[in-house]
Amino acid sequence: MRKKAYKKLKSLLGARCLEDKLGRLQYSYDATQRMYMPDVVVLPESTNEVSKIMKIAYEHNVPVVPKGWGSGFTGGSLNVEGGIAISLEKMDKIVEFDKDNLMIWVEAGLANYDLQEFLEPYGLIFPPDPSSWKFSTIGGNIAENAGGPRAVRYGVMKDWVKGLEVVLADGTIMQLGSKNIKDVAGYDLVDLIVGSEGTLAIVTKALLRLYPKPEHKKTIQMVFDDMKKAARTVSFIMRNKIIPTSMEFVDRDAIMAVEDALHIGLPTNADAILILEVDGNRAEVEENAETIEALCKNADGVIRFRIAKDEKEAEEIWVARRTISPTLKRIADGKINEDIVVPVSKLADMIDASQKIAKKYELKIVNFGHAGDGNIHVNIMYDTNDEQQTKSALKAMDDIFTACLSLGGSITGEHGVGITKKDYLERQVGGDVMELYKRIKKAFDDRNILNPGKMGL
Amino acid sequence: MRKKAYKKLKSLLGARCLEDKLGRLQYSYDATQRMYMPDVVVLPESTNEVSKIMKIAYEHNVPVVPKGWGSGFTGGSLNVEGGIAISLEKMDKIVEFDKDNLMIWVEAGLANYDLQEFLEPYGLIFPPDPSSWKFSTIGGNIAENAGGPRAVRYGVMKDWVKGLEVVLADGTIMQLGSKNIKDVAGYDLVDLIVGSEGTLAIVTKALLRLYPKPEHKKTIQMVFDDMKKAARTVSFIMRNKIIPTSMEFVDRDAIMAVEDALHIGLPTNADAILILEVDGNRAEVEENAETIEALCKNADGVIRFRIAKDEKEAEEIWVARRTISPTLKRIADGKINEDIVVPVSKLADMIDASQKIAKKYELKIVNFGHAGDGNIHVNIMYDTNDEQQTKSALKAMDDIFTACLSLGGSITGEHGVGITKKDYLERQVGGDVMELYKRIKKAFDDRNILNPGKMGL
Repeated sequence: MRKKAYKKLKSLLGARCLEDKLGRLQYSYDATQRMYMPDVVVLPESTNEVSKIMKIAYEHNVPVVPKGWGSGFTGGSLNVEGGIAISLEKMDKIVEFDKDNLMIWVEAGLANYDLQEFLEPYGLIFPPDPSSWKFSTIGGNIAENAGGPRAVRYGVMKDWVKGLEVVLADGTIMQLGSKNIKDVAGYDLVDLIVGSEGTLAIVTKALLRLYPKPEHKKTIQMVFDDMKKAARTVSFIMRNKIIPTSMEFVDRDAIMAVEDALHIGLPTNADAILILEVDGNRAEVEENAETIEALCKNADGVIRFRIAKDEKEAEEIWVARRTISPTLKRIADGKINEDIVVPVSKLADMIDASQKIAKKYELKIVNFGHAGDGNIHVNIMYDTNDEQQTKSALKAMDDIFTACLSLGGSITGEHGVGITKKDYLERQVGGDVMELYKRIKKAFDDRNILNPGKMGL
Repeated sequence: MRKKAYKKLKSLLGARCLEDKLGRLQYSYDATQRMYMPDVVVLPESTNEVSKIMKIAYEHNVPVVPKGWGSGFTGGSLNVEGGIAISLEKMDKIVEFDKDNLMIWVEAGLANYDLQEFLEPYGLIFPPDPSSWKFSTIGGNIAENAGGPRAVRYGVMKDWVKGLEVVLADGTIMQLGSKNIKDVAGYDLVDLIVGSEGTLAIVTKALLRLYPKPEHKKTIQMVFDDMKKAARTVSFIMRNKIIPTSMEFVDRDAIMAVEDALHIGLPTNADAILILEVDGNRAEVEENAETIEALCKNADGVIRFRIAKDEKEAEEIWVARRTISPTLKRIADGKINEDIVVPVSKLADMIDASQKIAKKYELKIVNFGHAGDGNIHVNIMYDTNDEQQTKSALKAMDDIFTACLSLGGSITGEHGVGITKKDYLERQVGGDVMELYKRIKKAFDDRNILNPGKMGL
């Protein structure tokens, strides 16, 4: 059955249909390091071709997994049931740049970075800035509803995607959404598809809203003697009605790992560092920075408060946040990296729970991330050669999810569910909601061929 | 069949189940002035009661229409197929006010105005401010994804609803969403239900984000000698990266109607007035107002530019916009009021088209509305005693929709589809998308008992 489909794909796409092992290997993994070989890889160049591919897959009931550059952390783009990997990499063009409406139509395979580069000369930005922005694609960002440090002020993908061109499982091409700022005609399928991890439709093009590049910004560093005090300061700032652009944090172990690797003079007596950025027009930035200084300089637990005087100092401040991931290997070779999120007011409680879990299992748990969103990257470190530690790490992860859910949190703030968290989704949303998800999935994809096995569906 | 259900409802709710004609009459109409009698009206006091009502309706296959205060313009809350009217009016409480996370859980029957009153002493606002805010409910605002003048800067309901408690057609109660600022676990059912006009589920409670009340604002009036120049100025301001809080417009006939009724000294040589409001902290407001003055004071077509010096002057400026609807009766007794929306860059083209259509049918078409969103309230005026004019008005409406869609617009920016526009939705979104809507509707409501006959479903 599947072989017939692959034969048709080969004759449709020729050299853009990869059947050899080496070709397929390149599309068999993502940032989870797990590996699932697709039977065949196709590289369409247009929405029409995607539609033709889907018609073949639908006819022969073959699973299809859409892919960008494979930077996902939850296995969302892996062919867990084999079948067809459909890479959008050749669909990376800017289709229409509408300066009058500050919007742009792009193909899904365009890298976030390439979009930002294109916009730079026009003084515009596309606000969502996931850490993977240099290589992750707009299509992938849409699939996971990606955020990034700027999300505190500017929100996530969903806030910036106005329209989509998609292909359904049976090959139907649909244009959804519009350039209209307000539009309440019919169900909002754009917002349903953003964040649906490639399970409802294949996004081939997206209409994105753009934003004027903020003229000014200020970067602020606050060093704390206690992580929980840092967490409390985050909600204190929000409660005082200041909404910074970014509000990132790193905990003690993250600071030590970075300092140990780079010797950049990070305060080794610190339990946590908060990094804030405010942006906007000059007056707004000055006023917000002053307010934050007045509120926080002498706040409980603050042992250093610094506003960067120039771009160079700002960069120095950011180094402590940006270089964590690569330096964590100094702690242990194994790492379970989660992206739980809790209401901002519960951040200190979650950090407390994480510290207790670390003690219970005698493991290092390094926390850093987007404090302003309550979005914590929890890194459970373990020695992969130590069987006991490996088991403990998995148990610790389970405890982390339990603690997070009991605080009203979510198992994922920006990485998605994919395969790595599929067993936890029902615990969060409940059985009735899972059943409704399945019925919605069926409304889009009655043969369950689009990215099957993801999100517990 | 239905009678059995009504008997059960009576024994469940007693005096809160209205069966008499006078009682039902009060729930038989909305702002469209059309009238459909429900067979029975129920007034639940809790989500559990709503669930019990739905279980009865589901068992006996009886249509159920959820209602707020009936201020809708498209018939969304009318019992077009009879059955049960379920008014949420007794569910009007504030459930949980979470100052730390700037969020609030409220019952769906709470009036928008009562929420704003509650928030006032805390220096907070709920940004969506539909013109009906004094009497429309949060549940109704959610059903239509309502906007309002502030939407240019603050967005619409969807941007501020973080969670919902809903009851499905079969009585299942679901908690959707969370206080987490970012949350990508599962499909986003909150964003799907907001704007679904009561066809997917009955919203009983909502978790809303709040916002600090802007400390300062400035109101600007610009008078133009040509409506199209005013429209062009709107996109000119946006292109220059200024995003005001509100950007409203009124056209010549609207100005004349207001002046004729109130004699407040509106410039009778004007073809259009733009009203802008900027808000935020003092520095931001000053800078934005100055930039707008520099950009627009001598712009093409501006015959008067005025920044209100105080609250009293601001009120005077707003009168021209706020009093239009009641004064339109001076032009003619019949009015078809639509809320089309076009991309902001197409505003001038749409006004042009509307003027040509008015000429073609020899009718007055008065335009006003939310220029900053491209959202135009088109009012086709006609004499209801003149059969020819009445026919022409309907034809003109059809032409307006055709022109709007050909400019990439939408048939509704904030009023919804309901029954008045159900024949136009397919023209906008296409047959394939309509089929998908129907499959999604079925995933929620397999017996089609929730608000049937709306949105062309």
